[in-house]
Amino acid sequence: MPSPDPTPVSESRIARWDLEADVAIVGYGCAGACAAIEAADAGAAVLVLERAGGGGGTSASSGGLIYLGGGTPLQTACGFEDDPEQMYGYLMAACGPAPDPALVRPFCEHSVEHYGWLEAQGLKFKPSFFAGGHEPPGDDSLTFSGSENVHPFRELARPAPRGHCASVVGPKGGVLMRTLLGAAERRGVQLQSGARTDRLVRAADGRVVGVVARLDGDDVCVRARRGVVLSAGGFIWNDAMLARYAPRLLRTEFKIGTENDDGSGIRMGAAAGAATLRMEAGDITLPIFPPLSLKQGLYVNRAGQRFLNEDAYMGRAGEFALLYQDGQVWMIVDDACFERPEHVPVEIAAVGETVAELERELGFATDSLQATVAFYNRHAARGEDPLFHKQPDHLRPLDRPPFAALDLRPEHLPYAIFTLGGLHIDADGAVLTPAGERVPGLYAAGRTTSGIAKQGYSSGISLGDGSFFGRRAGRAAARLST
Amino acid sequence: MPSPDPTPVSESRIARWDLEADVAIVGYGCAGACAAIEAADAGAAVLVLERAGGGGGTSASSGGLIYLGGGTPLQTACGFEDDPEQMYGYLMAACGPAPDPALVRPFCEHSVEHYGWLEAQGLKFKPSFFAGGHEPPGDDSLTFSGSENVHPFRELARPAPRGHCASVVGPKGGVLMRTLLGAAERRGVQLQSGARTDRLVRAADGRVVGVVARLDGDDVCVRARRGVVLSAGGFIWNDAMLARYAPRLLRTEFKIGTENDDGSGIRMGAAAGAATLRMEAGDITLPIFPPLSLKQGLYVNRAGQRFLNEDAYMGRAGEFALLYQDGQVWMIVDDACFERPEHVPVEIAAVGETVAELERELGFATDSLQATVAFYNRHAARGEDPLFHKQPDHLRPLDRPPFAALDLRPEHLPYAIFTLGGLHIDADGAVLTPAGERVPGLYAAGRTTSGIAKQGYSSGISLGDGSFFGRRAGRAAARLST
Repeated sequence: MPSPDPTPVSESRIARWDLEADVAIVGYGCAGACAAIEAADAGAAVLVLERAGGGGGTSASSGGLIYLGGGTPLQTACGFEDDPEQMYGYLMAACGPAPDPALVRPFCEHSVEHYGWLEAQGLKFKPSFFAGGHEPPGDDSLTFSGSENVHPFRELARPAPRGHCASVVGPKGGVLMRTLLGAAERRGVQLQSGARTDRLVRAADGRVVGVVARLDGDDVCVRARRGVVLSAGGFIWNDAMLARYAPRLLRTEFKIGTENDDGSGIRMGAAAGAATLRMEAGDITLPIFPPLSLKQGLYVNRAGQRFLNEDAYMGRAGEFALLYQDGQVWMIVDDACFERPEHVPVEIAAVGETVAELERELGFATDSLQATVAFYNRHAARGEDPLFHKQPDHLRPLDRPPFAALDLRPEHLPYAIFTLGGLHIDADGAVLTPAGERVPGLYAAGRTTSGIAKQGYSSGISLGDGSFFGRRAGRAAARLST
Repeated sequence: MPSPDPTPVSESRIARWDLEADVAIVGYGCAGACAAIEAADAGAAVLVLERAGGGGGTSASSGGLIYLGGGTPLQTACGFEDDPEQMYGYLMAACGPAPDPALVRPFCEHSVEHYGWLEAQGLKFKPSFFAGGHEPPGDDSLTFSGSENVHPFRELARPAPRGHCASVVGPKGGVLMRTLLGAAERRGVQLQSGARTDRLVRAADGRVVGVVARLDGDDVCVRARRGVVLSAGGFIWNDAMLARYAPRLLRTEFKIGTENDDGSGIRMGAAAGAATLRMEAGDITLPIFPPLSLKQGLYVNRAGQRFLNEDAYMGRAGEFALLYQDGQVWMIVDDACFERPEHVPVEIAAVGETVAELERELGFATDSLQATVAFYNRHAARGEDPLFHKQPDHLRPLDRPPFAALDLRPEHLPYAIFTLGGLHIDADGAVLTPAGERVPGLYAAGRTTSGIAKQGYSSGISLGDGSFFGRRAGRAAARLST
């Protein structure tokens, strides 16, 4: 289905306003909810337009990790030292190419305050650290959610776990969103659900003054006296946009998002003159951990070469595999470390009593994979990985037959993906034109924007920057500026 | 210096038109000249606004290769078989990710006609093929200008040389542009040089009806009764745009272009509602050939691994080196194949009587590079390259000491770069909005647009698609459509 025309409507063509508010917010995931709370606290009458039957969006079905740091009370209570400078050092190194200091700097400097704000909304953190290196399966609230403690980042910034989540067993995104939506509701934020918003309304002077939504088949004109916040998600469910801007993401079908992540916010913003940034970028997760034992295995390409330390965050592995190795990737394991991935089905591409047999079965050049494994084993026996610097706790010679190759090509394993490109915003969540000017009256946050992560990703960054800049967008929209 | 504000001017604010034409063309390189000729042939009065003192632009200082094929008379005369389907197969494979069939298809199907048109403008081709695999140093007119005859492309489409150039010893871009500019002049095309154009003029209904140029410090309002063509080059000379959209291109400073390639055409188009595509893309050339003997060497990364067949086109090598190996790349040579690159200075990172010595001096892990070279030599002795499939004529064991490593990191060797991202156009050269609608009255071609090459590149594609879609943009602009 072609996307609806996002061209802004002229205010002069609006016969009457069906609904009015100070601030209109399009999309009620994490970014929209935080914008709503802050706008209400700034004294604005807030109306949220949500396409689904209720609030939550992709955030509600997410893992619920929020990237926070710089020395939060939770980090301190769990015995970890952190400060904004170390957090900044990690994010600038890990979220490239070329993260925007104008966003990363305040995100780090005010992260402790943001943590306190989330607590004040009712989010409960438990001072308990999960050492597994992924989303806590239990009720722990802190985990390493990126590549902070592995090469090369551990050498660039002092590692600290920054994945924060609500203390609850099981899915944590739902608790996060119930908490935020409740906080918004208590402040009198109005919700119009089932409202599909595809066009902004613009005054003669270029200022965004409202939106037009479709509700039960009718056009509903919504006046926003102070500003509009676009927090309508990314575009992972829009194949035409993917084909145009981020075609490599079309190679896998495990889309993280709801079907409403069809880029409508980005298209509305761009049609109103906003710049879009890094539209090619996406989080690309190779979701084979847990089990952690697989980190003892070896990622290899078609030449039988390793290309990354296997203890890197899965989003980094996916980036390297899909973007830099063209998706031609396998994992070599032996009997001692093989367990089936918990979250995805995996195909076994080859099994052999020897690595030579595996190599043959994979159709790799003779002695390519054998040389790789022999070199690795020789050093792993000494607790070393001179080529890719995997941490010693995952180093062990692969010498227990049978050996197997897991097929990690995107056509064979569901990489989890969502888009990271979107509208260009400044640190206030104001939407910018290609010339760097603000589009008057227009704000945005979450995956409708290009935020902290420009390609490199760590878990929790989307809820992190969505909540952080969502708040700022809500505050800025509530101030009537000209 | 900040870029000038590209926001379109409302027609209602134009007190009087200083200049008028049917078609106004911004930028007088290859795309602009071809647009001018076709618009004039379609009966339009044409005015070209050029920022420099005269026409030519980056095209005039380029190598002058034009990507043409499908069975041109020159290909046939030189004994090469080609057809549009093979040309299409190559370009779709080599210009990805995801080249746009809507552009590539007509580019291939009408390439023979386009060749004839270029001849009709006065361009002289000599039926003589240069076998060196790069720009002909003599007056030959045909050469392989991409990776057509190497792995993996030779297996995907029947190889044919498609780099066509004017038969002249020495620089060929100048001859091309003198020919095209002369053809335009003979048709009465008017040129206003020294005119800096930064804003479009838009009517109340959204139609682009002119431009505002700066001439000797004054604003000059130019009415375009039928249409405006943006052919103002790319943005390789705009560091702020590179930082935003294509930060990896900032790692090297050998910019292919004139200082006028500052993105003004793209910014004007985007400010008028146009979509931009693949803004991250760039041609990235690792310009170490000639001498061809270096193709006997080995590209290696910091792990001492090869990653590409060394006979790949230099634009493919640059893409792999900078984007997929993070620029951490060296070339290993022995005494038998080493000669200094003709076009760039090269630093010798290490020299050794043995590969082991080289490996040590480079700080590579013991036995990493040695294993790579030993594996390569063993197969090269049999004329085979099982890992990367380099053609047999470049395969020879590296066994003649001393050995050396050439430093190919972008901080040490000037990669030649220009941008490939830009405005979204259709096959008529009409500029499209994010919703896929035409911006009425606005056309574009050349590196102001995202054209045939979405990242993968072959020499001659920019003059190829610039001239081809420049012609179409000129024709379309000359038709007064609504």
